[in-house]
Amino acid sequence: MDDAKPKSAAGEPDGPVPKAVVSRLSLYLRQLQQEVREDRQTISSKDLGALLGFTDAQVRKDLAYFGHFGYPGIGYRCDELMTAIKKILGTDQQWPVALVGVGNLGRALLGYKGFSQRGFRIVAAFDMDPHVIGSEIEGIRVYHIDSLSEVARENRIRLGVVAVPSASAQAAAEKLVAVGVEGILNFAPVTISLPPGVRAVGVDLAIELEQLTFSVVSRGEPT
Amino acid sequence: MDDAKPKSAAGEPDGPVPKAVVSRLSLYLRQLQQEVREDRQTISSKDLGALLGFTDAQVRKDLAYFGHFGYPGIGYRCDELMTAIKKILGTDQQWPVALVGVGNLGRALLGYKGFSQRGFRIVAAFDMDPHVIGSEIEGIRVYHIDSLSEVARENRIRLGVVAVPSASAQAAAEKLVAVGVEGILNFAPVTISLPPGVRAVGVDLAIELEQLTFSVVSRGEPT
Repeated sequence: MDDAKPKSAAGEPDGPVPKAVVSRLSLYLRQLQQEVREDRQTISSKDLGALLGFTDAQVRKDLAYFGHFGYPGIGYRCDELMTAIKKILGTDQQWPVALVGVGNLGRALLGYKGFSQRGFRIVAAFDMDPHVIGSEIEGIRVYHIDSLSEVARENRIRLGVVAVPSASAQAAAEKLVAVGVEGILNFAPVTISLPPGVRAVGVDLAIELEQLTFSVVSRGEPT
Repeated sequence: MDDAKPKSAAGEPDGPVPKAVVSRLSLYLRQLQQEVREDRQTISSKDLGALLGFTDAQVRKDLAYFGHFGYPGIGYRCDELMTAIKKILGTDQQWPVALVGVGNLGRALLGYKGFSQRGFRIVAAFDMDPHVIGSEIEGIRVYHIDSLSEVARENRIRLGVVAVPSASAQAAAEKLVAVGVEGILNFAPVTISLPPGVRAVGVDLAIELEQLTFSVVSRGEPT
């Protein structure tokens, strides 16, 4: 099982980690949190996998990218593995987030419970529409995009979410980069160019639908 | 390069296809459409890869899951490869889509240009809120969820999008399955259980943010 070059606990992986592995870490973390809420102390790779529909080998192989986490005859200590996964994912830190664009999608994101549940706090929103500037949506203040620099500094903003139309996405991303944002989650269905050192993840909802039609026509899930 | 068991053009793959490969097919398709709009007839794997930031080997390996598409000394014929990828992804067919839940996220999805650009047509929306039932949002009629069976049959709905709160997601999915929907795109941050034969893709926006923080802290992109 340990062909993925294990390292010391929660160490940096040696090489590139498949995106699917990182996604599954999020699922493991979520399941562990659920188990801890139900007072479970330890869990085997078999049980953790079974709860999520994965094999025990998959669980062990995924975690082996990052270190050794289990104990013989015990399995994983839930609290310890949660802490390790949070560290790997970077969610042991605070990530104040700025949202650019408060159209329907931006509003949906401001109200999206999944972010705050996972420790991502949208601390400010930005737009250019005078009708929304100065208002609060879901308790978040909306500022003019020209105030980005000041607000970002005050709130130590590290991540940006781009929820503007495609034609404005690159400009919005550049403004975020200019104020020192380290990573951008881009919902506009276009590719944005960023300088080296700034990370981006694109969420293209049509690609998700294409994944779905692929699995319907091929009668198999992508792995 | 051809270690991925090539088959005849646009054939069914032999085994499971990594999710990342399917995602890249969407990107190749998009880029090819762009090239065709600019009157390009053929493209090499090197050029196609370079335009998207991938190596030529990656492009060839991804496509080799599904068949042989290139011509020696020519590269790919753009039109032909587009047609093949659409067939692989299933987007050579019409997929009338039903949306369940017209809160902020549902409204954002109704207005999302990326779906219609890619051939996904939301033909009807459903909710339980009497204030929105009977109205049109972005030109799409909103029905009471109790009308799902009738409207789904009339519109030959094949895919469902679930944009309701977590607590209602399983029930919404079951209603969609009951009217014969073949695939569900689930935006609620919970796992839904579906009968065998019905496909689901979950879009968990917090997981996307965790991918981003992972790549910021690890200083590397997941592959």
